[in-house]
Amino acid sequence: MKILGIDPGYAILGYGFIEMKAGRFSLLEYGTVSTESGTAMPERLKRIYSRLMELIYEFEPDVAAVEELFFNSNAKTALLVGQARGAAILACVNSGLEIHEYTPLQIKQGLTGYGRADKNQIQLMVKTLLGVKETPKPDDAADALAAAICHANSSNYLDKMKKVEASIRGKR
Amino acid sequence: MKILGIDPGYAILGYGFIEMKAGRFSLLEYGTVSTESGTAMPERLKRIYSRLMELIYEFEPDVAAVEELFFNSNAKTALLVGQARGAAILACVNSGLEIHEYTPLQIKQGLTGYGRADKNQIQLMVKTLLGVKETPKPDDAADALAAAICHANSSNYLDKMKKVEASIRGKR
Repeated sequence: MKILGIDPGYAILGYGFIEMKAGRFSLLEYGTVSTESGTAMPERLKRIYSRLMELIYEFEPDVAAVEELFFNSNAKTALLVGQARGAAILACVNSGLEIHEYTPLQIKQGLTGYGRADKNQIQLMVKTLLGVKETPKPDDAADALAAAICHANSSNYLDKMKKVEASIRGKR
Repeated sequence: MKILGIDPGYAILGYGFIEMKAGRFSLLEYGTVSTESGTAMPERLKRIYSRLMELIYEFEPDVAAVEELFFNSNAKTALLVGQARGAAILACVNSGLEIHEYTPLQIKQGLTGYGRADKNQIQLMVKTLLGVKETPKPDDAADALAAAICHANSSNYLDKMKKVEASIRGKR
């Protein structure tokens, strides 16, 4: 299964493609779609949409895992990021991808089992689980990969539970 | 000049197409793109995008006027509406349309000369300026038409000022 992870943003959007085979992850590609400060929003949305469409065409993921964003107070920022998130989701849905959304809490718990894990802990887990030497940079790309891993883990959860149960039974 | 006006929303998005010829408006089409409550956001965004693409293909507008939205406090709603707005803008920009954004205040002032005009006054102006018998319904569609008229008026403003000046000179 190939998974596209997305950390939405209007100035910088992080993406990452991973593949899961026989319970092991491999890192296919990661990076950001960024636009210079002062770029008009329609131009930004077009760039996000068309770049993601290109990447999806190239890496052929099966599903997309998109980070859900929360804003406690800043509705203006929420509206801007919402537009970028809309463009990203549209690129996925127009490419026929199934879309799953995960909150930052779910992603943290999915990776570290701990909802209050900090950025460094998340990055360390991303690096370790993907078996790469360097932490994927910038943070936006690492967060996107974390979302993808979170989806892989959660969709794999039932399978894993069955295997764990079988192994426990086997040891008895 | 043909103008597409859009009043963004994720459950109901209003649209309206008008044409301006020789300073007169005509109403080409208006309506809403709506999705049932409980529809998943990716599905909503896909519907907004594809329906607007169809309409743009059919009515061939030159520009799009999109209402800017403001949320004082509700960041959660802002994020949702932002996504719908992103999908709408993307349909316009991917169709090669120039995009102009107007705040509710600018739209009110552009139509009635009065920033605190209420819904009824706006609807009356839309009806009058477009020369139609019935007020376009629902409100979302009327608001979209108001945005389109606002753009026509503002882009026509300099031309009008020149004509007014010339007519004043002529009367002297």
